[in-house]
Amino acid sequence: MPIRTPNDILICFEEEKAKQFIEKVWGLNPTFICVIGNTETAKIPRISAAGKYPELTDYTPAADVELLFYGRCKCIKGVPVTPEGIPTPALITMSAVRVADIPVFVVNAGVKVKPHIPFIEVEGSPGNDIRTGRAVKDSEKIFQRSALLGESFAKISDYLVIGESIPGGTTTALGVLLAMGIDAEGKVSSSMPNNPHDLKLRVVKEGLASTNVDPERLKKDPLVAASAVGDPMMVAFAGLIVGAAKRIPVVMAGGTQMAAVLAIVKGKNSNVLENVVIGTTRWIIDDNTSDLIYLVSQIARVPVLAANLNFSYSKYDGLQMYEKGAVKEGVGAGGATIASILKSKGNITCKTILSDIEKNYERLLSLKH
Amino acid sequence: MPIRTPNDILICFEEEKAKQFIEKVWGLNPTFICVIGNTETAKIPRISAAGKYPELTDYTPAADVELLFYGRCKCIKGVPVTPEGIPTPALITMSAVRVADIPVFVVNAGVKVKPHIPFIEVEGSPGNDIRTGRAVKDSEKIFQRSALLGESFAKISDYLVIGESIPGGTTTALGVLLAMGIDAEGKVSSSMPNNPHDLKLRVVKEGLASTNVDPERLKKDPLVAASAVGDPMMVAFAGLIVGAAKRIPVVMAGGTQMAAVLAIVKGKNSNVLENVVIGTTRWIIDDNTSDLIYLVSQIARVPVLAANLNFSYSKYDGLQMYEKGAVKEGVGAGGATIASILKSKGNITCKTILSDIEKNYERLLSLKH
Repeated sequence: MPIRTPNDILICFEEEKAKQFIEKVWGLNPTFICVIGNTETAKIPRISAAGKYPELTDYTPAADVELLFYGRCKCIKGVPVTPEGIPTPALITMSAVRVADIPVFVVNAGVKVKPHIPFIEVEGSPGNDIRTGRAVKDSEKIFQRSALLGESFAKISDYLVIGESIPGGTTTALGVLLAMGIDAEGKVSSSMPNNPHDLKLRVVKEGLASTNVDPERLKKDPLVAASAVGDPMMVAFAGLIVGAAKRIPVVMAGGTQMAAVLAIVKGKNSNVLENVVIGTTRWIIDDNTSDLIYLVSQIARVPVLAANLNFSYSKYDGLQMYEKGAVKEGVGAGGATIASILKSKGNITCKTILSDIEKNYERLLSLKH
Repeated sequence: MPIRTPNDILICFEEEKAKQFIEKVWGLNPTFICVIGNTETAKIPRISAAGKYPELTDYTPAADVELLFYGRCKCIKGVPVTPEGIPTPALITMSAVRVADIPVFVVNAGVKVKPHIPFIEVEGSPGNDIRTGRAVKDSEKIFQRSALLGESFAKISDYLVIGESIPGGTTTALGVLLAMGIDAEGKVSSSMPNNPHDLKLRVVKEGLASTNVDPERLKKDPLVAASAVGDPMMVAFAGLIVGAAKRIPVVMAGGTQMAAVLAIVKGKNSNVLENVVIGTTRWIIDDNTSDLIYLVSQIARVPVLAANLNFSYSKYDGLQMYEKGAVKEGVGAGGATIASILKSKGNITCKTILSDIEKNYERLLSLKH
């Protein structure tokens, strides 16, 4: 009996493959992995909204995953917010994994502030400002260790859902996409309603000008591209996929950064792409300032699914702002929501999750005082 | 249909419960976790044989788990050996997990030398010499983070097999057992045929004299006992069990150190003990210089199973020495062997594993030259 795609999951690219994926994992048990990292790129003024002000972005990845583990942050008070006070998408992920009892693991690809949780170490370092052209150290090591880790998780998981938290990540994604010859100008997303495309492009061009690597090498070797103008998160993320997707399906949970990860995966082992789908939010798909589908379609014909989350009628202004283009995605919010729906065979819906999010948000707001 | 206990698994304590455990996990998929740590206690002359000389014991845990991941060590040449050149029990574990395709994860409870693999960080530190009476820092943090980790693994594993690598670990085990009021004098094992009981007791007594904690508190609070005269490995190990065994069975894979871990678990949450068994080697059971069963029987009526490994007719002297009381156990060798047999429903035997061990040992010996 074919499974009807739940209404709360939108299929946005490669419909047939997307449906096959849904049938394959229907009711199965995913493992959620969040890859965290920092890049100094996030501190370039007006580049990231993943923190109240640029210096606070150091804390955002750690705070995000603490929220997943404890239902509250430990390394900061309250929760990560944008300069306008809009809360982190980790709120969505937290509710999604909790209502569906999905286990969470965290991989430290290179953070400045370590989370107060058990985390997996691949011994990466925080990324440099990509304008240096030397963004990531030890990318080969990060990639290989993450691939080993992916192999291990593949032995004990029906499928993986991998998300990320790295402020400034869309700029580094743009860096790697352009370095690899993909038409990405004006196509990556932003956590701000006003996407600073010009600024991002200027930063990336400066990085590409600084690196002394031959452009043809940048195009051909994705780890060279990531080392020059990427970030440690995407290297670990790609390693996990290459290790795991040989054996089990993997949901890449994120927005336009997933295009950069996908390009790295394709360059390292294109065979695994048949086991890969992208899971994102409707806010990314509806975003007029970016184009995930166009980016993906240039790289590989992997399905794109989106969680049909709708915060229009939320009681909370902070959540309603998601409908106005703030935040949009992050910490695997969309993919975790999709996995939660699929694991529960559709019993959990976006509405269930929103109601849990509002409960948690209320509790967290009250903690602040 | 009741399952016949395979000949290669000896039941040494609590036969009925042991048989129930075997029936419960028959053919299921375990996850192997190795907890690594260091303690300065290992550098007291003549206390540990887990390294060619005392200073090299810093490298042993890292080298052991590298062997599990890569089939060879990275942080040292060759493999960890005793001063007599007898190879690490990680050789056994490596073969057991490989022939049965059992996934391996490593938890760093506090090592001096980090392994070149992906590992899970609970942010412990290497242990001090227990003669200081201040052996372990942050034991509450190590315990809580490991418990969270155990909960996560319990969601994606049918059962866990947890092993350890920490040179000097039987002395710290003696410390915690005596601190907690268990009759353990002359009962803990050793990696040497001549078990230096007097030396170990002297070291522990010095530690207990140095600590300024009230003896009644040491008895009642296992983390206080471990902080005074234990090691970081046992704290993380106990945390993993307390987190996981609420939900799934756990095999404590080790020798007499497991008695100390068991005492900590009992003191933190005795309810989980019904989901716990000890898996060791015949060499521990046959050891005249120690008494695992007597130790365990004082703490909890948990089953003890032993892998009936026999190296008498091995082609290699280094392996034959196991029959003369060298090494005996470590890196979860016994428990991993049992899990390998159980996962394969008896298709894998101790003989299969020995033949793989000999192949690997031969390859590793040839690498050295």
